Parts: sequence; structure tokens; C-alpha cells
Amino acid sequence: MDLLKFIEIIGVFASALAGLFEARRRDMDLVGLFVVALVAAFGGGTLRDLLLNRTPLFWIEHDGYAMAILGLSLIFALFPATRRFPPSALLIADALGLGFFSVAGAGYALELGSSLFIAAFMGTITGTFGGVLRDILCNELPSLFQRSHLYATCAFIGCYVYFALLYLAVPGDMAVWLAIVGITAFRLAAVRWNWVLPVSR
Amino acid sequence: MDLLKFIEIIGVFASALAGLFEARRRDMDLVGLFVVALVAAFGGGTLRDLLLNRTPLFWIEHDGYAMAILGLSLIFALFPATRRFPPSALLIADALGLGFFSVAGAGYALELGSSLFIAAFMGTITGTFGGVLRDILCNELPSLFQRSHLYATCAFIGCYVYFALLYLAVPGDMAVWLAIVGITAFRLAAVRWNWVLPVSR
Amino acid sequence: MDLLKFIEIIGVFASALAGLFEARRRDMDLVGLFVVALVAAFGGGTLRDLLLNRTPLFWIEHDGYAMAILGLSLIFALFPATRRFPPSALLIADALGLGFFSVAGAGYALELGSSLFIAAFMGTITGTFGGVLRDILCNELPSLFQRSHLYATCAFIGCYVYFALLYLAVPGDMAVWLAIVGITAFRLAAVRWNWVLPVSR
Repeated sequence: MDLLKFIEIIGVFASALAGLFEARRRDMDLVGLFVVALVAAFGGGTLRDLLLNRTPLFWIEHDGYAMAILGLSLIFALFPATRRFPPSALLIADALGLGFFSVAGAGYALELGSSLFIAAFMGTITGTFGGVLRDILCNELPSLFQRSHLYATCAFIGCYVYFALLYLAVPGDMAVWLAIVGITAFRLAAVRWNWVLPVSR
Repeated sequence: MDLLKFIEIIGVFASALAGLFEARRRDMDLVGLFVVALVAAFGGGTLRDLLLNRTPLFWIEHDGYAMAILGLSLIFALFPATRRFPPSALLIADALGLGFFSVAGAGYALELGSSLFIAAFMGTITGTFGGVLRDILCNELPSLFQRSHLYATCAFIGCYVYFALLYLAVPGDMAVWLAIVGITAFRLAAVRWNWVLPVSR
Repeated sequence: MDLLKFIEIIGVFASALAGLFEARRRDMDLVGLFVVALVAAFGGGTLRDLLLNRTPLFWIEHDGYAMAILGLSLIFALFPATRRFPPSALLIADALGLGFFSVAGAGYALELGSSLFIAAFMGTITGTFGGVLRDILCNELPSLFQRSHLYATCAFIGCYVYFALLYLAVPGDMAVWLAIVGITAFRLAAVRWNWVLPVSR
């Protein structure tokens, strides 16, 4: 398995967990848990692949991932203890999903010959869209569209950091990991210290 | 015309009617009626076909279905009597759409070589997504994401019943009809007797 | 560059401006402005191209348009004066986007061999879907689904006017411009004089 596929799968499970933490807090039943987890896990990658016309979709070709998420949803549905994860568990799982997905999405787009700008854009879509759908399904205002801690910005800038590392001849694997750590840390720092974009008035 | 196409078309008109009943209750105008009916009728199949990369979309290739739905929308817009259908009309049309669409969606996915799990998943998407979009457009909380009577569950289990019947060497046509009747009856029973999934606390 | 591409690009910038006017009024930050502008500019054309399986998407192939919209978003984010555009600026930009996009969408569908009905439908999707997404992201009820001034109706009828002009052997370029002017004027008149569709009771 190549590296991009590997990090996308880590992104899938981190994002699925973020979806399950959020859906469980809202007392959803098994169907609700599974739908939110699936959408959080595969929403960003699916939108990217539809826009880039990359088929077949990997979660359709390899159904083990969706089955594993069904298994996770069942565990969350059955065990009351899963309601008591602290909010930081959601935050960390979401930040990891953002980091892994953004770099995987940008990498796939580069492989298909996209320009750097489009690749950064696809990375950002991959990283954020699952979380946006998760928030919509859970009836929260998506953090992407409200003035709030940096989210899409972390992904977009992180993709350009990844390109810069590649340009500076950093070995591909190390560039991937540095960019993932950078995006995740940037996001967690933005929440910790309340970083927001300014609005001119 | 093969059987799957035939039952999908029944699903299209049952779901279009469910959309029209709901939109008419909200006093939408002709455009609102047509949009809700179209989205209810073609939403699930279109999402399935985009995910499976099945093109061209059948309602684009055969425009008679969309024109027929425009005709139905016009009838609903013109005749005040169409506002007075009882709520059970919506419920029954929606349950029929769920049954016909779920089996059609699962059958198409099997034809394309999907695994049973993915086929059941595609059946469920085909059966439920149009109704979810209809509820969103009509400003109702989609019943899929709230704790409410079984809906996606009926579709998903019904698809596996369909696969079991095929596995047991029940003739294909009879398996299709048994599964459709089973899903529709299961859904109506779930509403009648308030069946919901449990949530552990 | 052929005429349809040219008028679609005008539609892109008119719709992007409409999105920026609306998002700025809501005090969104740079990310919010850019997302709303992108979705308003490319949402309709992207849905059309996914439904018709026209790939690659033109804004992915030519990344200059998305970069230009990022530049516009930056200008709107930086300069407080951009908050003070009158509501009529939004209305006019939106009506221009409706006119240019509807004719471009219908023209592309005709080129792919769609029937007139499907072509008018694709024109209407191209013309309205970006605005619908813009309204949803800005937390307004989309004007498509409420009883309000004619919107989708202008696009749909305008597409048939375009086909009628072609059928009457009006030269292609003149038919395009007449239809665009007609749709835009029709929409502005509908808002000015409160034209709505009737609802029978």
C-alpha cells in the first residue's frame, strides 16, 4: 500500500471517531451514528473524487472500511461509556482527520496533474468537507462558515507547506508527515489560543 | 424493459407523489412542487449512480419521466382538492417508494459486481435519500437522523432479505417482489406500532 | 474561445460578486467570503457537469478563475467600503448570473445532444443552483423554495425562448444575447413588480 492511501485510511478512522463522538453526544440511534460516521469519514474524499472524476470510489471498492465503521457504530450504540468521552476527544480526532485528509487529498490531486492551487484546494475539501457535513447532520453551525477558530485555513496553508517541502527536496515521506503534524498542531493551537481571521469594518 | 428498470419507475412515481403531497401541504407554488417532486423521485437514484459512476443518468436519457412529473406538479398546483389528501397518503406513497427503490438500487449494484454490503448500502441510499432531501426542502427534520420510526433500517435489512432469497434459489422475480412487499410492510408496521431503535444510556 | 464559454465566464464573475455582496453583509471572514463566492460561481455549473458527466470540470482545468475569485475575496475582506454596496448590487449581479448561466447551461446540454426539455432543465440548474447554495450558506431561506419573486421560472422560460429563437433561424450569437437579456430583465421585473406564481386553494 502506498503512503497516500495509508494516511487517507488513518484520516478515515480519525474522522469516523470524531463523527461518532459528536453523534453519541446527541443521543442518536445506531442508524444516526452510522450515517454521521460514514459521512464524516468518506464525505470529503468522495466529493474530491467526484470533482476529479477518480473512480471507482475506494470505499465502494473495498467495503471493509465501511463495515469496520458499522462495527464501531455498533460499539458506540451499545456501550453507555462511549457517551462520556470528553470534548477534547472530538477536537483531537477532528484535528487529526483534518491533517491526514488534507495532505492525502493534495497528494492525490498532484498525482493527477492538478496545479498547486487546485491541489491545495482539493486537500482543503478533503480535509474539511466531512466535518462540515457532520456538523450539519448534528445541527451545529459548521465551523467553516462562522467566524471561529481557523479550520480551512490550516488545511490550505498546510498544503502549501507540503508543496514547499517537496520543492525544497525534502524526501516525499518526510514531507507528508511534517505537513500532517503541522496542520494538526496548527488547528489545535488555533482552538487553544482562539486564533481567528480578522474582519475589516 | 427489464424488471429492475420497471420497479425503479414505480419507485419514481410513488416518491414523486410523496413529494407532491408534502409540498402541497406547505402551499408551495408550481416551481416548489416540481422541485420537491423531482428531488424526491430522482435524488436517491442519482446519488447512487454518481457514486457508482453509472452514466448517463436515466432521467436525463429518457426525459419523459421528468415531463410526466411536471404534468403531475401542474395538476397538484391547479386543483385545490389535491391539498386534502390525508397524511396516510404521504405515508403509503413514501413506504412504497422505499420498498421499490431499495430493491432496485441493490439489484443495480449487484449487477455492477458490488459486494453484498455495498449493494445493501446502495439500496438504502436509493430508498432513503430522495425522502431525506424532500424533508429538508420542506423544512422538516429528516426522519433518518432523528430517533423515529425505522426507515433506513427497513431498507438495509430488506436488501439482505433479498440477497438471502436469491441465495436460497428463489426465482429472481419472486425475490424482488417479496423483498419490496417486505420493506414496505416493515416500514408501515414501524410507523403503526412505533418501532424505534434503542439508545443505551 | 467560443461564445458559450465566454458567457459562462461572465456568469461566473457576476455570481461570485453576488456571493461576495451577500457574505460581506454577514461579516464573514476571508474563508467564508471565498467559500460563498466559489460556491455561487461554480455550484450550478458543477452540478450540471456532474449530472451530464462532462469532465474535467473547467474550474479545475483552468485554475485562474478560482484564483481570481480568491483575489476578489481578499479585496472584499480587506476593504470596509465593500460592506456598503446597496442591496440592488446583489440583486443585479444575481440576475445577470441567472441570465448568463441559464443560456450557457442550456447551450452545453444541447451540444451534448440532450432533448429540449432536459436542456432547459440543465440551464435552470446552472442558473439557479449557485444562488440556492449561496442563500443556504448565508442562512437565508433559498428563494427557489419559498413563494417569492419568479426565479427558476425566468430561467426555464428563458431557455425555451432561446430554443424558439434558434428554431426561427435567428443567428446563434444573437439568440444567445437576446435570451440572456430576456432572462435578466424578466427576473428584475419580477422583483420590481412582485410577480409570483399563484397557488390554488
